[in-house]
This record gives sequence, structure tokens and C-alpha cells, in this order.
Amino acid sequence: MSEDRGVESLGEFTFECGESIPDLEIAYETYGEFTGDNAVLVCHALTGSAHVAGGRRRSDTAGQAHAWWDDIVGPGKAIDTTEYYVICANVPGSCYGSSGPASTNPETGEPWGTDFPAVTVGDWTRAQRLLLDELGVPNLHAVVGGSVGGMNVLDWAKRHPDHADRVIVVAAAARLDPQCLALDAIARRSITTDPNWNDGDYYGQDPPTEGLALARQIGHVMYLSKSSMQDKFGRRSAGMDMGRDTFPSDPAAGFFPYREVESYLDYQGEKFAERFDANSYLYLSRAMDNYDLASGYDSDADALAAFDGEALLLSFTGDWHFTVEQSEELAEAFRATDAATAHHVIDSDHGHDAFLVEPDRVGPPLDDFLADGVYGKAVSDTVEDHDAGDDFAPVHTSLFSD
Amino acid sequence: MSEDRGVESLGEFTFECGESIPDLEIAYETYGEFTGDNAVLVCHALTGSAHVAGGRRRSDTAGQAHAWWDDIVGPGKAIDTTEYYVICANVPGSCYGSSGPASTNPETGEPWGTDFPAVTVGDWTRAQRLLLDELGVPNLHAVVGGSVGGMNVLDWAKRHPDHADRVIVVAAAARLDPQCLALDAIARRSITTDPNWNDGDYYGQDPPTEGLALARQIGHVMYLSKSSMQDKFGRRSAGMDMGRDTFPSDPAAGFFPYREVESYLDYQGEKFAERFDANSYLYLSRAMDNYDLASGYDSDADALAAFDGEALLLSFTGDWHFTVEQSEELAEAFRATDAATAHHVIDSDHGHDAFLVEPDRVGPPLDDFLADGVYGKAVSDTVEDHDAGDDFAPVHTSLFSD
Repeated sequence: MSEDRGVESLGEFTFECGESIPDLEIAYETYGEFTGDNAVLVCHALTGSAHVAGGRRRSDTAGQAHAWWDDIVGPGKAIDTTEYYVICANVPGSCYGSSGPASTNPETGEPWGTDFPAVTVGDWTRAQRLLLDELGVPNLHAVVGGSVGGMNVLDWAKRHPDHADRVIVVAAAARLDPQCLALDAIARRSITTDPNWNDGDYYGQDPPTEGLALARQIGHVMYLSKSSMQDKFGRRSAGMDMGRDTFPSDPAAGFFPYREVESYLDYQGEKFAERFDANSYLYLSRAMDNYDLASGYDSDADALAAFDGEALLLSFTGDWHFTVEQSEELAEAFRATDAATAHHVIDSDHGHDAFLVEPDRVGPPLDDFLADGVYGKAVSDTVEDHDAGDDFAPVHTSLFSD
Repeated sequence: MSEDRGVESLGEFTFECGESIPDLEIAYETYGEFTGDNAVLVCHALTGSAHVAGGRRRSDTAGQAHAWWDDIVGPGKAIDTTEYYVICANVPGSCYGSSGPASTNPETGEPWGTDFPAVTVGDWTRAQRLLLDELGVPNLHAVVGGSVGGMNVLDWAKRHPDHADRVIVVAAAARLDPQCLALDAIARRSITTDPNWNDGDYYGQDPPTEGLALARQIGHVMYLSKSSMQDKFGRRSAGMDMGRDTFPSDPAAGFFPYREVESYLDYQGEKFAERFDANSYLYLSRAMDNYDLASGYDSDADALAAFDGEALLLSFTGDWHFTVEQSEELAEAFRATDAATAHHVIDSDHGHDAFLVEPDRVGPPLDDFLADGVYGKAVSDTVEDHDAGDDFAPVHTSLFSD
């Protein structure tokens, strides 16, 4: 597999908020050979990187952000890099090579910190479009992404309806619901109340690791389902107390068990705080919270009206961050535009994480949709027959994906 | 209505953890006249007080903790204080008059802080039993409580099976599930990472209000349902930015709306931090997390085996903190003991808060169960006919409670 990675300087970039920076740098990776009509743009999730695939090269990018969809993207995999030219770019505002709060403000020679302009999902799309121009890719066979990456995909269908033939929106929604807005807001407050956050000016000194770890822990609860947590942890005590001192506690706490679920959260929080920038977390989670497909239009369907490609929505029954119902609303919006649409519901207990940890179920519909669109063999829909106009009748997707 | 309030000194008290304090003080209130067989013990929830009813006397106890079930308890109400002698006691570890971390250690003349012994739900029950002895109440017509107060009720049925004729467990469970354990753990970490927490030694100086406010905000998300948040807040911007400066933020945040859901959380967090003690929050939430009805027994049913009174379980369809399924499991445990049992499911979109904010639906089954047990007119069950042994067939409780 031919792989390329780099950082593209896109020059002065004015963000949707009206502020600009003199040179927007975008870290990207490409996989495979471009043939003119085989480009697939992959949009990463909140804390992802451009390093979507290519094996576990821990030295390149830290933690979960490396090769984060390696089960899906690669030679012979669902997004087959011997067939498609796959591009993934780290979004502006992130901390994996693209310009963001942690990168250097050329005017001061210091990190931007919270002087970095506010970023939106729309800024991500615009930066990706500019990058693709630099790479000589005018049109995309497909855009695919999960979670807020799926919102990024929706933004492509809305903003550049003629530039993508197929869109694949995985475990996403037209907008976050207020329950998720609330949890994201609490997560941000946990960062900004950490005294080490210091109004965002912590580079070169102790970063707000405790606040960032708490934010991540809230995220992890959102990514799992109630029943998956029951299966994974139950109420079991952790085998050892390692990790118990991750956060301060008081003597009386010692009377109670340190549970596996706490140990898991403490480990995840600590690891994440090592790999991610707290300001980036503030910026990117606000971009997610703010995204609203219908913004500037009367409805989701109006926002998608100019898109005449094909759309695949993938959702997971155990996902309460981005629900099946929200994907069905999206499917209805796409259907209203007469775009060929399929909403493939995957029966999974893995919560929102399913899009990362259920490759055996995610891969086949994705693979077949890339090849054959909504009539791909492994692609199911919540509406049984597009032409017959039957009543809503969910297909048991496990028949296809097991 | 005859009302009494006081603080009873119960003398030296050894907690389940093995530590003791020289004098356990319990703040309590009583309503009505004791006739020998009409006593009803009300168990409060995590942040409640003994002041269960009696109108909105804000000068007596601050915030939500005053008259917290005034719609249910009082003359002519569901728990009719002209008929029943109602007792409510603030639990050990709390901060509303009973001994807890904020009260004075007589040996030092200083607040206990985190030298206060760990408390358990079992300690609450034992303290209540001692208080009732002091009040001359050997037996209870009923014990009733919601949320962790419902766990307190379960503990009565387990620990003193002959002392209560009827138990009413509202929006509770035999034990918390790991999703709730996770959120409670994160809430505690938000308190202990607040530098003002200072290892629990903050009395007389700035308390950890930000950490406590964050903990409360996490709680509020747990108390509401996804759809009630949609109805209550949607994605609307707050009418004004008042409250926006409750927590630190960065300039880029100003580009995005301050939403109603954030404004609600900030207001609730701030108010709560004014009225509640952060150490008490640590102590009481650990008591809740630790409670397990089956502890010391082979099963929930075994733990309840000696109880031969009648049991009413009340649950709410929109409650994800304590689910209908968890109440049904409790009902099955009670049924296995041959106790007359009814599980009354209330169709409500108000999440866990329903037990406080749906008095029109909670009152009738409660009222009729107190009077006539499981055959009370407004009491429904998930099993249609106790004698016929029919299959599980939920009754539409809205027929009764509307």
C-alpha cells in the first residue's frame, strides 16, 4: 500500500468566526493510488488523528489516535486501499499536527493557546476542501466518518453537494441532543476549573491533566451503553488498587472497594491526558456541540436538497450518544431529497464505541456501499423496498452482518 | 397538624466501618399524632433533609432540602398527617443537622472533616431505629423513601423485617448499576480535584464550590431523561448570558451560544454548592454506591426472606438512574418471599425526578397502599393477578393515576 503523510500549508485561513491565522497547517495521510475517481475522504472523530490506518506505530502518534480505524481501512479491508485513494486530515483546532491552540503563533513564537480562533465543523470541511485542491483531488467517490466525523460528512453533503458521490454517516446525527450538550458542557467546565488550565496558558508548565482526565471519563460513559458497562465491569472490585491514587481521595474512601469501573475510567483518563491537549478538547467539543445540519436552512432536508449522490447511515442499537432514532431522522431528510438512501441499523451492545469496535458488522455494509451504493449486498435499510413505498419495516441487519 | 422537630443525641455510635463517634446526633421532624400503630418513616434521598413537609419555610433549611415532599406529605395528602404519625430523620453523614463531616468533633472542637467515619445505608437504618426507640415507636406501619431513600427502605425490610408492616420503595434498586457508579465516581473526583477541597479540610475557608457544583451538574443529568431535556431545553440559547461566568471560560467560547441547558446546570450547580457540604456529598454518594441489598446473603430474595409485610415498588418509565427493570427485579425478589407485592409502573417522561415532580401520579397508589396494601384501589402491578399466576402483563397505570 502506497502511503503518504505530510503537513500542508494552506496559507491564510479565515475561520467561520471571522478571525484568521496567517497559515493554516493541515496534517494528513493518504493511502493507495489516485486514479481520478477513487478518492475516499475519511473524517475522524473528536480526538482522532489523520493516522487512520497503517498498523500500530505507537511512535508516530500517541494512544488511541493512531491507526484508529485500522480494522476498516487497509489493503483488502472494507475501505480497500488497493482500490481507493484514502485521505484523512487532522481537523483544525486539534493537536495532531494541524494548526490548533497548542501550535505556534508565528507572530509571537509562542503557542496560540486560547488566542486561537474558535473552530467549527464548517471550518473542518473548508480546510479539507483546500487540502484536496492541493492534492489534486477535485471530486470524491465517498466521504465517510463516525461520531462528529459523521457530522463532518453531513457538512460535505450540504456544503459541497456535487463533490461527493456517496456519503457514509456512521453513528452521528444532524445535531447533538441537550443531554449530550449538558455532558459536554460539564466536561469543559471540568477542564476550565482545573487551576492548571490557567486560562488556557499552560504550555511549558503543568497542564490541566486532572480536568482533562475528568472530561474524558465523562466521554467514556457516553461512549458505552448501560448494558455493556454491566457486562464489562458489573460492580466488581478491581483486582488491585493500582490507579486508586490517580485522583485525590479521603481516608473514609478506603472502607469502600475500588471498583473495576473506576479503575477503567482512571486509566483511560490518565492515558488520554497524556496524549491530548486540553484546549483542543474545549475547541473541538464546542465545534461538535454547535453543529446543526439545518443551520442556515429551514430543515435538514433543505440543507441536503442539492445533494444528489447516495447516502448510507449506519447506527447502533446500543448507542445513546447518537441514537438510531437520530440516524433515522437523517435518513428521512436524505430520502426527502430523493437521494438514494439506506439506513443500516446494527444490533450492537457496544454503545457509541461500536463504530470502532465492531468492524465485522461495520465493514460489510461499508464495503458494499462503496462498491454498489444502496443496493450493495450487505446494505440494509429501515425501509424495506425503496420503490414500493412500503410502511416502515426495520430489517434485521444481523442477518447480513453476522 | 402537630409538628415537632429536634435533634436527638443517640450517644456513642459505632459505624459499620468499625469507627465510632462519642455522640451521634440525629436531626428529625415528626408530623401528626402517634396512636401506637400509625407511624410512617420517610427516608430522604441523597441531598434531602428531615424537613419533608410543612410548607416553604426557606429560613429553616436552605434550597431544595426544605419541604421536599410537601406535595405528598401533609394534612389530607397522600401520606396524610391527620392519620399517620410521620417521622423523617436526616441521615448520619449529611449536613442538615445530623452528625457528619461538617459537624464538630467534640474532642478537637473543630469540624470532623474527613476524620468522620465512613457511613453506609446500614448506618442510616441503625440510627433511625435508635431514634425511633427514643421517640417510643417500636413498630412502623410503613417505611417509604425514594432514590437512595428507597435503598434505605429496603434495608429496613432486610434488617428489621418485623418492624415494618409495609414498605414503599420509590424509584430505587437493589444496587446501582455500573453506569451510575461511574458517574458518581466522576462526580466525587470533581470535588476532590478542586484545590479548595484541600483534603476535606476547608471549613472556615473557601469551600470547593466549583467541584461540588460540577458533581451536582452530573447528578442533574442523571435525574432527567433524554426526552425531558429535549422538552425542557432543546438546543435553545439562554435568553441572557447571566450565569455564563459561573465557570471560567476562554475567549473563543464567546462565539458560541450559551444554551439554556448550560444556564440551568450552572444555576443548579451554584445553588447546590451554597446549600450542601462537599464532604457530605462524598460520604453519602459512597453510601449509595456501596449499597447492595443482597450483601451478606445469596440473593436479594434471601435478604428479604424474613420480611412478611406488604411491599409496593414504584418506578417511572423515563428513569434511567433507577430503571423500571431494576424495580421489577426487586418485585420478583419480594414475590419470591411470598410477601404481598405490587410493582406500580408510572408512565412519566420526567426521569428520576418524577418521584418528586409527579405527585398526582405518585400520590394515589401511595395513599391507597398505606390504607389497603397491594389491593388498594389505585395500586397496580406488573403481574395482573397475584393468585391466577398469569404471565407478566403490565397494567397501564395511567388509567389510575391520571
